[in-house]
Amino acid sequence: MNNEAPKIIQLPEIKAILRGANIFEDIENGFVAYSRNEAVIPPVGEMLFEEPPGEMHLKYGYLKSGEYAVVKIASGFYNNPQLGLNSSQGMMLLFDQKTGVVKGILLDHGYLTDIRTAVAGAIAAKYMAPRKVSCIGIVGSGIQGKFQLEYLRSVTKCRKVIVHARSAEKGQAYLDYFKGSDWKIEVTNDLEYLARNSRLIVTTTPTKEPLLQADWIQAGTHITAMGSDTMEKIELAPNILGKADIVAVDSLSQSESRGEVYQSVQAGTLNRKAVFELGKVIADPELGRQKDDQITVADLTGVAVQDLMIAKAVFEGASS
Amino acid sequence: MNNEAPKIIQLPEIKAILRGANIFEDIENGFVAYSRNEAVIPPVGEMLFEEPPGEMHLKYGYLKSGEYAVVKIASGFYNNPQLGLNSSQGMMLLFDQKTGVVKGILLDHGYLTDIRTAVAGAIAAKYMAPRKVSCIGIVGSGIQGKFQLEYLRSVTKCRKVIVHARSAEKGQAYLDYFKGSDWKIEVTNDLEYLARNSRLIVTTTPTKEPLLQADWIQAGTHITAMGSDTMEKIELAPNILGKADIVAVDSLSQSESRGEVYQSVQAGTLNRKAVFELGKVIADPELGRQKDDQITVADLTGVAVQDLMIAKAVFEGASS
Repeated sequence: MNNEAPKIIQLPEIKAILRGANIFEDIENGFVAYSRNEAVIPPVGEMLFEEPPGEMHLKYGYLKSGEYAVVKIASGFYNNPQLGLNSSQGMMLLFDQKTGVVKGILLDHGYLTDIRTAVAGAIAAKYMAPRKVSCIGIVGSGIQGKFQLEYLRSVTKCRKVIVHARSAEKGQAYLDYFKGSDWKIEVTNDLEYLARNSRLIVTTTPTKEPLLQADWIQAGTHITAMGSDTMEKIELAPNILGKADIVAVDSLSQSESRGEVYQSVQAGTLNRKAVFELGKVIADPELGRQKDDQITVADLTGVAVQDLMIAKAVFEGASS
Repeated sequence: MNNEAPKIIQLPEIKAILRGANIFEDIENGFVAYSRNEAVIPPVGEMLFEEPPGEMHLKYGYLKSGEYAVVKIASGFYNNPQLGLNSSQGMMLLFDQKTGVVKGILLDHGYLTDIRTAVAGAIAAKYMAPRKVSCIGIVGSGIQGKFQLEYLRSVTKCRKVIVHARSAEKGQAYLDYFKGSDWKIEVTNDLEYLARNSRLIVTTTPTKEPLLQADWIQAGTHITAMGSDTMEKIELAPNILGKADIVAVDSLSQSESRGEVYQSVQAGTLNRKAVFELGKVIADPELGRQKDDQITVADLTGVAVQDLMIAKAVFEGASS
């Protein structure tokens, strides 16, 4: 009893398909379905490595009304660039949810995770950032620091950016990446300066010590924190979430054990009951920002429903 | 920054490689390493489906001293045969454990899981079955009922077999499968008859009601229970484990939430402290059967270290 062979899709084809796909709407729909309990998303699997340090995450799930189940494997090995390899690696697998037969193998080396994460940041900004943003602050100059900015293009007219880089070299690489674009980018190593002058801040680092302090955050600021996705990582001092008018997460259940909300609830600065899911905000924008001077935070740990939606879009866009 | 493309290995090549590989010793070594805490094996991931009913298991891990990490995805969709598909589906993925780069994609459709499970059954019999077995009892006439018997060939001289099948048709299919072999096979629908007359019993079903009762089990019997691998499944009445002289499991940690040992501890018939791991028995056979009239049970839920060892053997045996 044989199966049809799975479609194996390599990175160049994945990138080509994404240029023509409306991922943004797909992922919005995914968040809404997830928050309506229309998805089955088991807990995130995690495998840690010590020598060299690395981590692998397994995220998987399906929409009850859908055709496919996704299994996404994404790893971060932070010494990889020394070997000429990307830190991010991995793949996405699509299965027929009625038979378990594998339909697609997307050899994206972590690229789709990077994209769906950046899209989620843009969705958070769409519903939660103030209407007028005079300056965007990006904390972290790596892949996510770049992709987050690229995907913000469609949800804000602001083109002024302050980016925090850990070295002048990394800052220059960031500037080079955006050379020729209409982004007006200033590089800084001063986080307080970035925070005080940006009304839309995206944090993208794997730090385990908070980078942003509460008294730097001005009225009328939205922060999307997407770097912290484990129990140990934290980018925002816990009293930032305590001070915020609105705190949303992509996944309430994941926020019980990972991310900024987990950290702030542990620190006693945040009441878990005050937090709701991004999917609820998308379905009912009145849950999002209501006034320009509110402080809002979106804490994103990454949900398999995003992987499902982007994998499905790529699979269906691929030549058979 | 590009990676070398992963080696994609299809089922026919996998089967050809296995014919020349010494999987038995590899998996024994894997169990020993696992029981010496030389492996990192996170908890099993599980995704359940309702319409049609199905389950997908994710098992993953690595040996600290090894080169690779494995991620194994195996599903069971029990209505698949109606569609002309195997119930078992899935694949194994091998990653470089120092970079996360995917090295091998083994499109085995669940075959390697079936084989490593059968090999584990034979290993359990090698260390725990009585020296002389006059008759083997196989409960379940499906793939595992067949593979378990095939792999027992190398660890016992007994060729007399009683197999329990749920229908005459399934029993006949089992006989047909072994036609021309030297196995002398009797098909029965009487589990008590099977149990009373077999000194080496292997149970291979996904039942949620115990099939074997304690008073049927004679002195000098070994039972390998490999069907139960979730919290709900159970093949042996809990007082069988209570009555046994030796109870071994492949994984103590997995037996805390799945399999026969979990069920018997819940039922109060078994003290968890009396149970030890198969890897300990392999390393020190004095922990195994000492007398011919003992009753012994091996409860196997399947460990990622088995997947790692078989995937590695296939990968290294493949043409590059």
